[in-house]
Amino acid sequence: MSTVEMEVFSNAQLIVMTILMFIGGEIFTSMVGLHLKRSKIITWNTEEKGTSVDQIQLTIEPVPNYKAPWFETQNDVSSPYCNAILHYNSIKFLSFVVLAYFLVIQILGVASVLVYLALFSSAKDVLRKKGIKALTFSVFTIVSTFASCGFVPTNENMIVFSKNSGLLWILIPQGLLGNTLFPSCFRFLICVLGKKIKKAEAKYLLKNTTKVGYLHLLPSLHSSFLVATVLGFILTGFVLFCFLEWNSEGLGGLNTYQKVVGILFETVNARHSGETIVDLSTIAPAILVFFVVMMYLPPYTSFLPVKGDEQSNLDCEGAKRRRKWIAKNLVFSQLSYLVIAIILICITERKSIKEDSINFSVLNIVIEVVSAHGNVGFTTGYSCERQLRPQANCTNKWYGFSGKWSDEGKIILILVMFSGRLKKFNMNGGKAWKLL
Amino acid sequence: MSTVEMEVFSNAQLIVMTILMFIGGEIFTSMVGLHLKRSKIITWNTEEKGTSVDQIQLTIEPVPNYKAPWFETQNDVSSPYCNAILHYNSIKFLSFVVLAYFLVIQILGVASVLVYLALFSSAKDVLRKKGIKALTFSVFTIVSTFASCGFVPTNENMIVFSKNSGLLWILIPQGLLGNTLFPSCFRFLICVLGKKIKKAEAKYLLKNTTKVGYLHLLPSLHSSFLVATVLGFILTGFVLFCFLEWNSEGLGGLNTYQKVVGILFETVNARHSGETIVDLSTIAPAILVFFVVMMYLPPYTSFLPVKGDEQSNLDCEGAKRRRKWIAKNLVFSQLSYLVIAIILICITERKSIKEDSINFSVLNIVIEVVSAHGNVGFTTGYSCERQLRPQANCTNKWYGFSGKWSDEGKIILILVMFSGRLKKFNMNGGKAWKLL
Repeated sequence: MSTVEMEVFSNAQLIVMTILMFIGGEIFTSMVGLHLKRSKIITWNTEEKGTSVDQIQLTIEPVPNYKAPWFETQNDVSSPYCNAILHYNSIKFLSFVVLAYFLVIQILGVASVLVYLALFSSAKDVLRKKGIKALTFSVFTIVSTFASCGFVPTNENMIVFSKNSGLLWILIPQGLLGNTLFPSCFRFLICVLGKKIKKAEAKYLLKNTTKVGYLHLLPSLHSSFLVATVLGFILTGFVLFCFLEWNSEGLGGLNTYQKVVGILFETVNARHSGETIVDLSTIAPAILVFFVVMMYLPPYTSFLPVKGDEQSNLDCEGAKRRRKWIAKNLVFSQLSYLVIAIILICITERKSIKEDSINFSVLNIVIEVVSAHGNVGFTTGYSCERQLRPQANCTNKWYGFSGKWSDEGKIILILVMFSGRLKKFNMNGGKAWKLL
Repeated sequence: MSTVEMEVFSNAQLIVMTILMFIGGEIFTSMVGLHLKRSKIITWNTEEKGTSVDQIQLTIEPVPNYKAPWFETQNDVSSPYCNAILHYNSIKFLSFVVLAYFLVIQILGVASVLVYLALFSSAKDVLRKKGIKALTFSVFTIVSTFASCGFVPTNENMIVFSKNSGLLWILIPQGLLGNTLFPSCFRFLICVLGKKIKKAEAKYLLKNTTKVGYLHLLPSLHSSFLVATVLGFILTGFVLFCFLEWNSEGLGGLNTYQKVVGILFETVNARHSGETIVDLSTIAPAILVFFVVMMYLPPYTSFLPVKGDEQSNLDCEGAKRRRKWIAKNLVFSQLSYLVIAIILICITERKSIKEDSINFSVLNIVIEVVSAHGNVGFTTGYSCERQLRPQANCTNKWYGFSGKWSDEGKIILILVMFSGRLKKFNMNGGKAWKLL
């Protein structure tokens, strides 16, 4: 959701914004970077030998006084000439694939939205009422979603389209393919294309991700785990949202199918695009805290960042070391434990949070949990004067805020205290600062 | 502040609690660990050679078939026999110093509190009214503060003593010496004692902190930086508290001197003891967020955890490497930036937070900041219905929550957006997860 009213913009202004979003997106700028890299290789070659790489490519003849560039020094293929050409061609192939990916997905998206608007009059009517052209809307929304800008040319963002499940279904893959899932799908695309055309280049790209140095081309294992992580987060958010908000006012008026699609859309967007179909201020704090974590995590966060999987030969020793590494990474950090505890307590105390929202503010819960974790004992207490709907039988007592919690909440707090006590002195001072 | 009413406990129960806190404290348990370690060395020696270390100490004769224990393998002193004895004696000396430190500081504290109670009748009157014996109160409070338990035998915690600045002055060093500053003061004590008695043992302890393996004996540089970090945090908290709460109701009725001491006490306690002289729920959220961070940080967190400063000889290359390391550690992590931004926005929006506390909840501010950082664009919006004191001229608009912020707050948010945009794709996927 943007901080300005979007409907004040004219059609021409929306087109300018679309162009800005188009060329400002992460993937587009990375394409420019690839082209610059390619031209650099050509310059280097012509300066060195007085001939362009394209010429070498045509002749493939040994050039005298040829010095191996940096990217060849560690390669095991015998001929350095072939390698230079392979590297150049691979980067050329890479830029071609990025361009194709970028254009095809967005053109498909725009076409789908146009078809949807033509078929379903409800969405078309909204646009007509607001005086937004269908083509402008389609291009603007798709480009904005793909580039994770989250702008929509309506004031109410996507809330006005919450019943248009078809439209949401079109936008969900756009958001994923343009952001968190881009490296994985991109790698998959190279793999598929490599089986039909440019076999050598594709193989080179997939094997030498670090040498190629393209930020969005991740090693094989990282790509797979990235998909698992993204899907895991979406599933968690989906379940949490369904559990807490299924019958809420925010989703009122939607049928079961619309609710499922809407919640899925909301969860996907929490990661990076930021389009929304519900008023976020009506959502349970447990979900909001979860969304805060989702927003904080960078797009390519993966559960299991495994080092050194460039080599495809998995020998026995390597597999062992890898398993150890995975086990090490599966252990959550201290802060993750605390965030999970806070989300759980927001769930157990959700009734009080709704009815007594000043006493049961998330800040007060955070203070109680972190204080328990650090064995500090600070508490904001509980005050009858702060109740929004004063209860007749409320008496102020001098015990902590957690005394008013449900039993489940208290048990979680006790567990936090125990883990805090056990961990307290066991950790390195320096590490802790980095953890912050 | 505890979650139970403390005044329900009888004198006998308070004494039992005191004993539990006395033997449950981190420093006491570490002493037991030292004794176990010492007895282990003796057992190892008697098993190996049929003689006790004390006998070796008396005779200092080469023992046949002597095998060098682990702690000697990397030592440069020539004689292994001398080394074994030195190690044993050093640990013995260490346990003696810990015991002395532990007892002297607490006995001094108890004596000071008793003297204070005898001199100033106001504090004594409070105890008499509550039926708490002066000696019980002194011992309980000192032991609890030194062990960072944060229990005080009054229901109101230290709020009832907020005007007794002398008492607070006694408790401030107890809290620091028993927790965050323990390693630094302890090292200093060994250093001072080493100049008068047991020179060799002190030197051995100070030089071989890792070999000694006592968790609370930190290397020299870490100890110094620890002091700087602790004082820096206290100063930051003190300034923040003075700036935001000087004229607040929580500190009402105190004169300038009492306020200064009270705020100092509060800031020191935020780190780990958790005794409080004000009702925390009345404090500005900016301070509460700062306190949350303070509570989260482990006691021995130091700004500059410098590796490998065991060697006292600072050669040129080492100094260079060290400077680089320090520079690396000075750069804050992403999360620190966000927390600082949140605290600053809580300061700029403090008026709205107080008057319009449901719209301006800390959770909503956190969502806005993290969303800006991740370029997501989620916002909870602003709703006139949620105002605690409805304003006549309020109209609901479809723009984000930050549209209602002050200019300073908006500028901070824009900076967060920029830094988020710049950092977004620049970081490693795996690293991000660890950062959480």
